[in-house]
Order: sequence, then structure tokens, then C-alpha cells
Amino acid sequence: MRETIARIRKFRDDRDWRRFHNPKDLAASISIEAAELLELFQWLGAEQSTRFAAENRERVSEEIADVAIYLIELCDITGIDLEQAIDDKLEKNGRKYPLK
Amino acid sequence: MRETIARIRKFRDDRDWRRFHNPKDLAASISIEAAELLELFQWLGAEQSTRFAAENRERVSEEIADVAIYLIELCDITGIDLEQAIDDKLEKNGRKYPLK
Amino acid sequence: MRETIARIRKFRDDRDWRRFHNPKDLAASISIEAAELLELFQWLGAEQSTRFAAENRERVSEEIADVAIYLIELCDITGIDLEQAIDDKLEKNGRKYPLK
Amino acid sequence: MRETIARIRKFRDDRDWRRFHNPKDLAASISIEAAELLELFQWLGAEQSTRFAAENRERVSEEIADVAIYLIELCDITGIDLEQAIDDKLEKNGRKYPLK
Repeated sequence: MRETIARIRKFRDDRDWRRFHNPKDLAASISIEAAELLELFQWLGAEQSTRFAAENRERVSEEIADVAIYLIELCDITGIDLEQAIDDKLEKNGRKYPLK
Repeated sequence: MRETIARIRKFRDDRDWRRFHNPKDLAASISIEAAELLELFQWLGAEQSTRFAAENRERVSEEIADVAIYLIELCDITGIDLEQAIDDKLEKNGRKYPLK
Repeated sequence: MRETIARIRKFRDDRDWRRFHNPKDLAASISIEAAELLELFQWLGAEQSTRFAAENRERVSEEIADVAIYLIELCDITGIDLEQAIDDKLEKNGRKYPLK
Repeated sequence: MRETIARIRKFRDDRDWRRFHNPKDLAASISIEAAELLELFQWLGAEQSTRFAAENRERVSEEIADVAIYLIELCDITGIDLEQAIDDKLEKNGRKYPLK
């Protein structure tokens, strides 16, 4: 993931886009891209969405990437380590939903 | 990232939650969590959101993780490699926004 | 509002689209359209968004309408009276945020 | 609708909340509330969501109202007439999806 993060950062800095980035606008951007991902499945049932994703992997993949890129850019400007954030949240979720 | 993905998968499978997962509902879940992240900054300006994130790192980190976990679970059931998806999208974005 | 609701219903029924409508997909559609509305202001500050809305009234108006149409269609299939729902919520909000 | 709009405006002005309102933050608020509405149906299929809405009318009604209140507040500060906006959009949609 480290190299992917470095590529995202380089893409942003090559275009001098860092100055547009702040937590609020990146969070809004994540929501906007998440809605575009959801739009792919707007009128489909669960099973249909599975078929659609299998037959349209590139479109699904692109929308997932758009969400992920903004998410990683938000981590970058806030100094949050994404893998650590996930690990911490899984641990917290584990206390909320303990195994029997 | 591979270990983080493995931990997410184990968390899901330990609770037998895989059967609830399909692309549509996971995409909806990503949107729902993205909105909770945005809610942290609902009435703040850009600079205020920077301060808020610095002073509330744990809350921001948790909301980011919630989006990321569903995003990774969507990748898992669709067989999409997240890092590859990001790399492909960066390349496509590079053709759309070429460097001068 | 009664006439507007009747026009929305007629538009839907003339195209035989009622059969696609269910609460979940309409709620997803509301989210999707709300994100398109937000996208108009994605990288703007509060004051800039005021100027943008003044200079692009038609675009803002169209995105607002898209959210409203799905919202009214959701009310229609669930038998919820929108004005009553708003009145009830304002009363509840009034108890939550009482005047001094 | 005129009376409902007047009540929303009075509620806002009684609390001196007008100063917080701008198109961007209200659009973000609409997205946030739309996601809370969607959350009610997060893991349900279409038919289950119909049953859920019938059995939980008050919760659905409240979330619909939250979206509608922000939408009407956005119309208020931008000087957009909601019913006119809907009528105009239906006409445009009619050209896009003509009857045979």
C-alpha cells in the first residue's frame, strides 16, 4: 500500500492540488464518489448487483478507486495511518460484537 | 495491506456475515459511512475542519476506517484488487489531466 | 403541493415506473441525487457557494428537484403525508431545541 | 406547502440559525440526512423494505422530514420555488423520456 499511497501523493503534488485539500471537502468528495458507486446498482436487487459487478468489473473498479483515492488523500493530510485506523476499528468492533 | 485485508475477512467470517454481503448493500453501506464522516465537518469551514481533525483524530480515524472496511469487503466479494484498481484509475486520471 | 404531487404521480404512471419503486431503492436514489447536488459545491467555501448558487440557479434548481421528486415518490408509496411529516418533525425538534 | 415553509422559516429564525445556512452546508446536510434515511433499509431487500416502512412509519417519516426540511431551507436561501423547480424538471424529464 505504501507505493500506492506514494503514487497518489505524487499525482496530487505534480498538479499542485494539495492546496485544495482539507478534511471537509475531501469528506464531501468521498460521499460524492460513494454515491456514484451506489448509482451503478441503483435499481438492482442483491443478486442482480452481484451479476452486474461480475459483468462490469472495470466500472465498479473505477468507482471503488475514486472513493479510495479521496480516502487516502484524507488520511494523508490528517496524518492518519489507514491500516492502523482499520486495525483499531476492528478491535473496537470486536468488543461490540464479541464471538460467543 | 494484505494482512489488514485478511483481518477484515476473518472478522467477517468469524461472525458468518459473508452471507449478508452483496455489491449493492455494500455500496449503500459505503455511502452511509461516508455521510457519517462528512457529518463530523457538517457546519465547519475548510480551515475549521483542519483544526477539528487535528483535535479529534480518533473520531475521524474511526469514520475513515468504517468507509475503508466496507470498501475492502466490496473488493473482496467482487474479486477486485484495491491497489490495482487505484493504479489503473491514476493512470486514467493522468490521461485526463496530463502534466504540461 | 397537491397538484405537484399529482403531476409526479402521473409522470411515473404514464411510464409504468411504479413497479420499480420500493422504499430501499427510492432512499438510495435520494442519496444519489443529494450527492449530485453537493457536487455543485464540492470545492467551494460557504460564501463562494452562495455566489455559485446565485449565478447557476437553473442547475441548483434541477438538482434540488431531483431530490424532491424521489422524496415525494417515497412518500407516495409509503402513504406518508410530507407536510404532516415535516410538521411533526418540527414539533419534535422544538422539544429538543426549546426557545429560552 | 406555503404554511409548512413558513413554519420551517420561523423555527430557524426563532433560533437565529439563518446565519449558519449557506448552499454548500445545506447540500451537505441533505446528503447526511439522506444517508440516515437509507440506513433504515441498509441490509433489506426491496420487499423487506416495503414491510419495514409499513411497520416503522414514524421512523421513516422522521428521516424523510429531515431531508425535506434542509431541502426547503436551501430553497429559501437561494430564492428557488420548490414546486416550480419540480414542475420545470418534470417537463425536462418529459422531453428526455417521451411517451410513445
